[in-house]
Amino acid sequence: MPQGKPTVVPDDGLTTRQRRNRPLLIVHTGPGKGKSTAAFGMALRAWNQGWPVGVFQFVKSARWRIGEERALKVLGESGEGGSVAWHKMGEGWSWSRRPGTEEDHAADALEGWEQIKRDLAAETYRFYVLDEFTYPLKWGWVDLDDVLGTLAGRPGNQHVVITGRDAPERLVEAADLVTEMGKVRHPMDAGQKGQKGIEW
Amino acid sequence: MPQGKPTVVPDDGLTTRQRRNRPLLIVHTGPGKGKSTAAFGMALRAWNQGWPVGVFQFVKSARWRIGEERALKVLGESGEGGSVAWHKMGEGWSWSRRPGTEEDHAADALEGWEQIKRDLAAETYRFYVLDEFTYPLKWGWVDLDDVLGTLAGRPGNQHVVITGRDAPERLVEAADLVTEMGKVRHPMDAGQKGQKGIEW
Repeated sequence: MPQGKPTVVPDDGLTTRQRRNRPLLIVHTGPGKGKSTAAFGMALRAWNQGWPVGVFQFVKSARWRIGEERALKVLGESGEGGSVAWHKMGEGWSWSRRPGTEEDHAADALEGWEQIKRDLAAETYRFYVLDEFTYPLKWGWVDLDDVLGTLAGRPGNQHVVITGRDAPERLVEAADLVTEMGKVRHPMDAGQKGQKGIEW
Repeated sequence: MPQGKPTVVPDDGLTTRQRRNRPLLIVHTGPGKGKSTAAFGMALRAWNQGWPVGVFQFVKSARWRIGEERALKVLGESGEGGSVAWHKMGEGWSWSRRPGTEEDHAADALEGWEQIKRDLAAETYRFYVLDEFTYPLKWGWVDLDDVLGTLAGRPGNQHVVITGRDAPERLVEAADLVTEMGKVRHPMDAGQKGQKGIEW
């Protein structure tokens, strides 16, 4: 994939360097595989820059992402690159004393978002992965206006990647970079279930 | 994304476990971002399983993938997880004494493929990333029939991920899992060039 040149030079009064270093809102959506996986792949680049990385996992499963979680934790503790903080809703957020309960998904999701707001305001991280965050938005557990307003007003140079199917149209419109992962073929179509090392 | 159940149970005489542990050929193609990034994200899961990971990078650039390369090398040397071998065409393959030259892309690509054939026959790795391998196929530098035949006949349980735009139709047909990354919006459309930590 060549670097290429921008197809349009905007009349925004910014230098190329200023535009280049703009904080990005990135969305990975669509029915195909790779939305979260690509976000964690991006986190490797952020780690390599020495940036603090914050992962917020809005899914309730012990098994998913265990490979990514262990890898990023090993990287964060390697003494090279940036730090990695990994927060997950499924086991109660790491800053929360309250264990997650089956009945409390909405409250758990909102609690995660409130922490993200605090972290964005404090510029705790430079690179955020909001994994599967489209679902609490879709289900109304987290207010989309609040999210869009918070992201639009975030200080400094904080990059945010949001993953999940069915990204709200207004989120897609607000994003700088949107990739739609389309399913062409999946082993489950041929009767195959997920396998270790591939799906988790 | 729920685990779900297979929509079809094939009449192939295999048990679920046998089907589950089938070696997969995976293709990430399409014009959007995330094809390679998702492949490197998958490599984190393979590493976590303790599998030897082999990366073959069919691009000529010193800058691309440096974050992923450093991260996977740190992981491979961490004493946890699997080993990581990273080979790149751009600087001459690691097993080759011949430095890459601008004129020799086709020969370099073919040399990489011949090594992959030897590694597949020897079951050197359990998880292969053939990064940007669609291009040498597209340009005729590597013979598609040879690739399809070699992959179909590979021994053991070796997973192979091939990335790049314009995957040949017959490669897509042969694959177990295909994701098409579609471009919805890219910062370069708004006059923004790539930036560190995001693009590399």
